[in-house]
Amino acid sequence: MRYLSGYGAMPLERLTMLVIPAGGPLSLVVPRLEAAPGSRSPAAAAGFLPVVPWDEGGDAYRLVADLVRAAVAPVERVAVSDDLDARHLLPLQGHLRDTRFELASPILREIRMTKDADELALLTLAARAADRVVAQIAAGRLVGRTEADVAAEVRERLVAEGHDEATFAIVGSGPNSASPHHEASDRVIQAGEPIVLDIGGMLGGYASDITRTLWVTGGDAAKGPDERFRHLFAVLHAAQEAARAAVRPGVTCEEVDATARSRIAAEGMGEAFFHRTGHGIGLEGHEDPYIIAGNAEPLRPGMTFSVEPGIYFPGVHGARIEDIVACGPDGVIELNEASRELYVVNG
Amino acid sequence: MRYLSGYGAMPLERLTMLVIPAGGPLSLVVPRLEAAPGSRSPAAAAGFLPVVPWDEGGDAYRLVADLVRAAVAPVERVAVSDDLDARHLLPLQGHLRDTRFELASPILREIRMTKDADELALLTLAARAADRVVAQIAAGRLVGRTEADVAAEVRERLVAEGHDEATFAIVGSGPNSASPHHEASDRVIQAGEPIVLDIGGMLGGYASDITRTLWVTGGDAAKGPDERFRHLFAVLHAAQEAARAAVRPGVTCEEVDATARSRIAAEGMGEAFFHRTGHGIGLEGHEDPYIIAGNAEPLRPGMTFSVEPGIYFPGVHGARIEDIVACGPDGVIELNEASRELYVVNG
Repeated sequence: MRYLSGYGAMPLERLTMLVIPAGGPLSLVVPRLEAAPGSRSPAAAAGFLPVVPWDEGGDAYRLVADLVRAAVAPVERVAVSDDLDARHLLPLQGHLRDTRFELASPILREIRMTKDADELALLTLAARAADRVVAQIAAGRLVGRTEADVAAEVRERLVAEGHDEATFAIVGSGPNSASPHHEASDRVIQAGEPIVLDIGGMLGGYASDITRTLWVTGGDAAKGPDERFRHLFAVLHAAQEAARAAVRPGVTCEEVDATARSRIAAEGMGEAFFHRTGHGIGLEGHEDPYIIAGNAEPLRPGMTFSVEPGIYFPGVHGARIEDIVACGPDGVIELNEASRELYVVNG
Repeated sequence: MRYLSGYGAMPLERLTMLVIPAGGPLSLVVPRLEAAPGSRSPAAAAGFLPVVPWDEGGDAYRLVADLVRAAVAPVERVAVSDDLDARHLLPLQGHLRDTRFELASPILREIRMTKDADELALLTLAARAADRVVAQIAAGRLVGRTEADVAAEVRERLVAEGHDEATFAIVGSGPNSASPHHEASDRVIQAGEPIVLDIGGMLGGYASDITRTLWVTGGDAAKGPDERFRHLFAVLHAAQEAARAAVRPGVTCEEVDATARSRIAAEGMGEAFFHRTGHGIGLEGHEDPYIIAGNAEPLRPGMTFSVEPGIYFPGVHGARIEDIVACGPDGVIELNEASRELYVVNG
């Protein structure tokens, strides 16, 4: 809805729905009390999109079904947003019993996957804001604080650096660094261990997402990274760099994934990299294209996605490096600028 | 899932699903890279909930369908969470073609609607934290700042006062005060106008949500609220107080709504109060019970909900007062303590 109409509706249990029958006419169905913001949305304010309010206690699903039937009969297929809630989808299915429901993303993905200049500008602003937060966290105190405390600082800094909201702040210290989606716990960060910092937010509707790996020494030179971790990180660093370098038009998503994966497997750590290499990013933090085995989608200029291999030894330690990149006409465009080296810091 | 298992999974496009066949056995289906946090979730860690990981590239929906079919045959009905995404629901329907899908909320609402002592304690902590932010904002500078700037301050303060995250910060100044779900714009706040401040966040998994109406004078006594606004606010204040006072076991949700509505209608402003009086609150910001005409649900001890009538004259001004209350055994329990008067401040 936001992509097609510019309307960033509040996610409510009351239905707001952009209705696009094949051949038109368009409608923006909104709860009565959202009529004013709906009417101010770009497409409505420009006169392209009639706003159709429904009243508290009314049946918004019947209204949508009637609008669709008035434009198209019979209603054979309806495509809905991937993130339409079951609370809305099931009653809509109830009003359109002979209709086949499917996801709209196979249609929308083709236009949403390649970003225009304005979208790239917003993604770059978001990426640079996240870069600054990484630098600030790496320069600050970490040892003796809980992961949750550091995560709260990350969230504040993401907003202070220009994000409209902080979406997530993963702080995985010590053995938690080996759990890719560990969030942040009450574990106290110790000197002599790694921290995987994976953070992001939304800026002007577009997402940031960066991961860097730190090692905190507590100021004790004897508590630097051991040989095993340095080797792990060197393998990871080379794999992530190779995957970024592989980005150019015509290369497939699975080839980018395989580039990172083969480097890590060649060092005998293939089992320790057990997630995909990346995900598209834009209005959503995770969207097409996915950089994963089996995705033969060729990269096109304007596609934006993460490159984020990781190596994890559960219970011991792990590391991940994640950048947001765009496929440019001649190769990769880096949206993040923060150093990709291991951040060995006093903490 | 969080209510039943304690697992607050990250919302991802990869499926995480708590599978509860009638008669058992239970499963927590998680993406492989979420196996560790899934296993640490309360029900899993306590040994009540086997974690069933699915591998990247695998078909999680077939896995769920197989688990259900292994326990129950034929699978006549499946109830899903209200907020299950279409991206998950449609493929699950594809694997269970002869199954009737419905919402789980009619079942879950009965147990979720009445809060236990721990839940009430968390809701109270959240409410008090939001109270403090209202007081801080009312005491600070407002005139000459944009609504968006004040909203950003609200979000920071919600977190600083103990919320895990700020969920929303509505700052509606001047004519924007008449748009109930106006968020916050670049409009600069002027002396001599009202501000509707409707803010909330999540604390320990539970939501806060408070609305207070301010009037900023800029320090100029001549710019206080005019007679028309004072009258509007007096009507609103009496209606909100009456609705809160009506809360006790056995009174229906629609009676609470009607209590506020009839007071406002009696003053000839019925048309200007065009939304329901309130919504339940708990793990979700909006949940059952809804305080709305047509809802004959009788209140029971432990139910928690908002009481938030508003009076709006589009293009001119508006006001709203919102409290979170619990139905106690003998009457209302106030979770918010902030003054409900009109905050006439220099701003």
